[in-house]
Amino acid sequence: MAARLMPSGQVGRSLPRLEGRDKVTGRAEYTFNLRLPGMLHGKILRSTKPHARIKRIDAAAAQALEGVYRVVTIDDVRTVIPVPYYGPAFHDQPILADGKVRHVGEPVAVVLAEDRHVAEEALGLIEVEYEDLPAVFDEVDAMTASAHVHDALKPAGAFVDLKHLEGMSGTNVALSYRLRRGDVDAAFAAADRVFEEEYRTQQVMHTPLEPFVTVVEPGDGRITVHTSSQGPSFVRIELARLLGWPENRVRVKVPYLGGGFGGKLYIKLEAMVVACALVARRPVKIALTMEEQFLTITRHPTTFRIKSGVTKDGRITARRCEVFWNGGAYADIGPRVAQKSGFAAAGPYDIDNVSIDSAAVYTNRPPAGALRGFGAPQLCWAFESHTERIARALGLDAFAFRRLNLLRDGRPQATGTIMRDCALPQMLDVLEQRMNWRQPYDRGSGRLRRGRGIAISIKGITSPTTSVAIVNVYGDGSCGVYCSTVDMGQGSDTAMAQIAAEVLNLDAEAVRVIHPDTDVTPYDMGTLGSRSTFHMGNAVRSAASEAKAKIAALAAELGLPSGSNVPVAELFRRKYGTQAGNIVGVGSYIPTYVSPDRETGLSNDVTPFWAAAAGGAEVEVDTETGQFRVTRLWLVADAGTPINPRIVETQLSGAAIMQLGFTVSEEMLFRDGQLTNGSFADYKIPGIRDVPAITGEIVDNEQQDGPFGAKGVAESTTMPVSPSVGNAIEDAVGVRITSLPITAEAVYRGLRARDGNPLPEE
Amino acid sequence: MAARLMPSGQVGRSLPRLEGRDKVTGRAEYTFNLRLPGMLHGKILRSTKPHARIKRIDAAAAQALEGVYRVVTIDDVRTVIPVPYYGPAFHDQPILADGKVRHVGEPVAVVLAEDRHVAEEALGLIEVEYEDLPAVFDEVDAMTASAHVHDALKPAGAFVDLKHLEGMSGTNVALSYRLRRGDVDAAFAAADRVFEEEYRTQQVMHTPLEPFVTVVEPGDGRITVHTSSQGPSFVRIELARLLGWPENRVRVKVPYLGGGFGGKLYIKLEAMVVACALVARRPVKIALTMEEQFLTITRHPTTFRIKSGVTKDGRITARRCEVFWNGGAYADIGPRVAQKSGFAAAGPYDIDNVSIDSAAVYTNRPPAGALRGFGAPQLCWAFESHTERIARALGLDAFAFRRLNLLRDGRPQATGTIMRDCALPQMLDVLEQRMNWRQPYDRGSGRLRRGRGIAISIKGITSPTTSVAIVNVYGDGSCGVYCSTVDMGQGSDTAMAQIAAEVLNLDAEAVRVIHPDTDVTPYDMGTLGSRSTFHMGNAVRSAASEAKAKIAALAAELGLPSGSNVPVAELFRRKYGTQAGNIVGVGSYIPTYVSPDRETGLSNDVTPFWAAAAGGAEVEVDTETGQFRVTRLWLVADAGTPINPRIVETQLSGAAIMQLGFTVSEEMLFRDGQLTNGSFADYKIPGIRDVPAITGEIVDNEQQDGPFGAKGVAESTTMPVSPSVGNAIEDAVGVRITSLPITAEAVYRGLRARDGNPLPEE
Repeated sequence: MAARLMPSGQVGRSLPRLEGRDKVTGRAEYTFNLRLPGMLHGKILRSTKPHARIKRIDAAAAQALEGVYRVVTIDDVRTVIPVPYYGPAFHDQPILADGKVRHVGEPVAVVLAEDRHVAEEALGLIEVEYEDLPAVFDEVDAMTASAHVHDALKPAGAFVDLKHLEGMSGTNVALSYRLRRGDVDAAFAAADRVFEEEYRTQQVMHTPLEPFVTVVEPGDGRITVHTSSQGPSFVRIELARLLGWPENRVRVKVPYLGGGFGGKLYIKLEAMVVACALVARRPVKIALTMEEQFLTITRHPTTFRIKSGVTKDGRITARRCEVFWNGGAYADIGPRVAQKSGFAAAGPYDIDNVSIDSAAVYTNRPPAGALRGFGAPQLCWAFESHTERIARALGLDAFAFRRLNLLRDGRPQATGTIMRDCALPQMLDVLEQRMNWRQPYDRGSGRLRRGRGIAISIKGITSPTTSVAIVNVYGDGSCGVYCSTVDMGQGSDTAMAQIAAEVLNLDAEAVRVIHPDTDVTPYDMGTLGSRSTFHMGNAVRSAASEAKAKIAALAAELGLPSGSNVPVAELFRRKYGTQAGNIVGVGSYIPTYVSPDRETGLSNDVTPFWAAAAGGAEVEVDTETGQFRVTRLWLVADAGTPINPRIVETQLSGAAIMQLGFTVSEEMLFRDGQLTNGSFADYKIPGIRDVPAITGEIVDNEQQDGPFGAKGVAESTTMPVSPSVGNAIEDAVGVRITSLPITAEAVYRGLRARDGNPLPEE
Repeated sequence: MAARLMPSGQVGRSLPRLEGRDKVTGRAEYTFNLRLPGMLHGKILRSTKPHARIKRIDAAAAQALEGVYRVVTIDDVRTVIPVPYYGPAFHDQPILADGKVRHVGEPVAVVLAEDRHVAEEALGLIEVEYEDLPAVFDEVDAMTASAHVHDALKPAGAFVDLKHLEGMSGTNVALSYRLRRGDVDAAFAAADRVFEEEYRTQQVMHTPLEPFVTVVEPGDGRITVHTSSQGPSFVRIELARLLGWPENRVRVKVPYLGGGFGGKLYIKLEAMVVACALVARRPVKIALTMEEQFLTITRHPTTFRIKSGVTKDGRITARRCEVFWNGGAYADIGPRVAQKSGFAAAGPYDIDNVSIDSAAVYTNRPPAGALRGFGAPQLCWAFESHTERIARALGLDAFAFRRLNLLRDGRPQATGTIMRDCALPQMLDVLEQRMNWRQPYDRGSGRLRRGRGIAISIKGITSPTTSVAIVNVYGDGSCGVYCSTVDMGQGSDTAMAQIAAEVLNLDAEAVRVIHPDTDVTPYDMGTLGSRSTFHMGNAVRSAASEAKAKIAALAAELGLPSGSNVPVAELFRRKYGTQAGNIVGVGSYIPTYVSPDRETGLSNDVTPFWAAAAGGAEVEVDTETGQFRVTRLWLVADAGTPINPRIVETQLSGAAIMQLGFTVSEEMLFRDGQLTNGSFADYKIPGIRDVPAITGEIVDNEQQDGPFGAKGVAESTTMPVSPSVGNAIEDAVGVRITSLPITAEAVYRGLRARDGNPLPEE
């Protein structure tokens, strides 16, 4: 390992979050609380059909309701946005339904009124006549179904790699990612044992505490968009494209954000509210209810067919992965999830022969996008359950089997990318120790049985992406950091302040972080996929370093000896004769790759760093009912050298608790495309009493090109949770669950089957 | 003259103001229109005494009035600002009266209420008991009066040159500027003729269309200040000093400003409203009425004793200037007015022996500060009236006499500063031509007589001062200019957009100028004294140039040949794989002086450039009543090479019309320190029917270190107006007026005196 950087004190501090006081005193600004003079409220009329042609919309009665300002449909939208289709990968999503609806809950019309209750009431007065179309809901069915969600594919123009899909028709496959390494068929034929399984995951939702909300102020050839977005720069660029305006006429502001988890990326309400505001020529606000979010963006259900060949002494020689991602009616970022997470679908193992097919599929469900892990948790559920089954079948210890096959630094991953700065071996060691894995273990007796399971995983970070930051040192030496990273609860403001403070030799508490505003803070690709600490951290570090260099240059210009440490305020005073001036540093970061693999010709730039985690779970299963409790979670992650260890620890447990909900309780249930449990009475997220004892730990590591050795960690511990729990259940009662969520019923059915007395299928 | 820069088309365009549509459609944001949730309105109780001790303030009845939230006095202010004194040159002004009042109208207390009418009503319920103190009102009397406005001088700590005044007592002189060049006494003794006169000017007010207004939002250890200020950076720094906070906790925002003219500089309402908001822990707004502005800031009344020695062929060999500036009760920027304008008190003439004494004097009047010209119009009234008298006495032509004595490029000004890039000779030529000076002139007959007069002047620009700008080029190649210059009607947004566009080869209309916000836009010394086009223009040019260089570097990095002209958006796409990134250029400007005069040892850095103008007036005088009309104004100015000629032309006429009001009608009248005409029924500003025919012209010139050869011009044509009119009256009827304003009564008295039949003094 390279020599450790020795931070001068700001980086590595577990200082409390800088925004803490604002939040606990209720002062923190959220878009949800924003009201503007003359503002109209919009309420959305949503499709009741999963797939249908719209024959007629009769809004006369709604329009006539006292207090209704206007009912807006796609025809009105077209008067201000001629081609009203958007999306980050495919321009497939209309701002309002355009002749067809493709999922239940799709926005069909918006009622604008001064009072949102009036708008709500008017929704009931709009009549929509539909003509049903054949629908498809399952991701595997959709591969071959004659029902097609879209007539033709519409990839976004910006992406070269999607160009060949333009106009393709007769398919529900938006994007199919394919990777071949070695010869899997030959390797399967030569293997001592071959294992083949299918794993499935369910559709779930992000459940941010602050629902989606957008407020738009129309101006003179300009708009200001206040929105609950994780990606203000993207929103600006996409709105500018829709409007045909230059970027500098679109201002996007994000104050604090009440959670995002990948749901608040790209365009959600923004285009709709912009259209409404331009049509109405008044400020418009649309805020979703918590329940409407189920119909807006979700996590992909998946089917993962996995097949592995192994030698009798436990080396995995071949792995074939076929993953089907149920993207719902609109692609959102789904095709990139299928592609980017597809890279690592074979798991963190050193396998010579790998075949991966990962398909993003349209269905008539609500759209799916990114959700804390960008597909990796679904994949890990499959490959780490599968890995455990192989180990058990071969009679090998869970740790030993993983160590034997581990993808270690210096070795190429399936894509050819050389692994580096990834602390998986250390994580396995730490996890084994913390779980007392080698000690005698009380497995319970009688009705209650206990078991333990583990899982490990890696995840690439979407790449290449860019962050830009500005650090402005004011006349008194205090400073501001300008970046478009959204503080959505993950503590990025605090981390960025620490990085700038470290470079400039200030207290982090003295650094002011200015919140995203595209008129103010420079470009950032988005607050997503564990990228901010690494990318924006590097940009902030670089901006602060440029400022520092300029300070040194100013001191030299003033004739001071280098290292004279005259305070900045005094330098300004000498230069300008008074308290005046600024020193502005700009930092722009895009990853550069240190180990291009020119020989293999394989792409070597799939990720700037590897997020990685190991996890363990203990469960207690009631063998009479199938009821079970997760009693303990162990989490070990690689954060490189953490900027703020305390915040990293809360990320470890936060990610794990979120994924625990997806593992044991959360599931959007559908009947004929209709969501049947779209309320928080029926859809159960973890409460405080559902949280098990959690042990979180960061291993000692350094991400060499990370800011002060740091890397992102927001998603890492989502990955091992589901397979750890599934593996623990198998460990406890010998039942293998292959579909998420793991319910008491599924366990009970497994117990009955195990005992040769299976329940009939429902 | 250096080779002219040939602009590629953006600089030099008379494009309409970019903000025009916003303004005519009522969309432009002004602080006056701002309302915040939970906001309290403040109304100010003002002193009824010119100088008195406060024995008692009884606010109980006001506090008890239904709807009154709180009455705030200096004791409350001290709980949040322990040392509540502010000022740009002297920390002499209390946020609210502190035991004493020093002028009629001084703020004594603030009533805060949810409704401003309630606050207004409550003012009448506050009882203040005063004990009168001896007062002084005249600037010459104040030099020797036993009544002293302040017990001791309190210069602001930031200024080295004022340090020696600290604690000085027993004087009303805040600052006394002194310049000696050559030996005036010897020169007077040797002169063929010596002329000695005294000129006076009156107290007037700025009358911006948007009155002073400040809105403060208190935060958690932070405040946001929305204010009608010309100097947001100064406001931030001064508030931070008062609060003892770092600058980055004070955010000052200025949207459009409805006129400033020097009145809205430094602290006006800001400290008071900050104190109220921190005391109340709620947002507070205080907006003055138009009438309250008379009591807030004004232009100095002056007495100017001027004495010149000349040879019989018309060379001025010596000039002594004694100027007394009536600064009122608080110094504001008055001492700097006395000092900076003092530099040029001897006029634009090449005189070997010069003596200048310029004293800023405290009196018990409302404070005086900067007003469009920073003292120069008052000085020019005196020295150009005086110059005319000498010419007439010697029988010399007005143009010829001025040409003979003109201070030409390459010659040292009284301060030793070498004149350069100052087009006075050309201006005289153009003015002479436009006025058809050499043609026969119809002087009228009978009761109505016509006459013409001219005047010329120069003015230094406060120096050294700094401006910083940021130019941000967005992913699509559109851009934003970040600067703290306040667009207060002078068109700076448009000029800055033109400068950035010129450098970046864009249309100026495509450049977005971001309005001052100290969290967003970098430091600027202030929008004042004709400095913005030059200083901020240079900073913007430099920022845009840095951005341009970075664009070229990016192109080179991408392997493009230099000059390949690939659009920026395409460069970003190649670099980042998508529409992403920024290029940020930073420009910081402080003048550097090209010709330091090491031999004389005289300070040679009094100004980065010379503002200069020549003007002519024609009047028609009714010899029976003294009524007169200014029938025509000719204005010729040096704007270097103008950025936007159309805007410069409106500056020429705007400045002249404003000064015409001060020449013929505006005057604040006092009796025993009480303002007797503090309303717009009694105080007469020019209406559209008072505006004469105006010919404005810019001479061909280049300010070598100005941005694209430009210099500031906002104040220039204020200077010649008053003496031109005075000289024209003398030309018409042989009456010399020595005090402003020139009234019909004064002319009538002059006519009676001329005819040997003087009226008795009033």
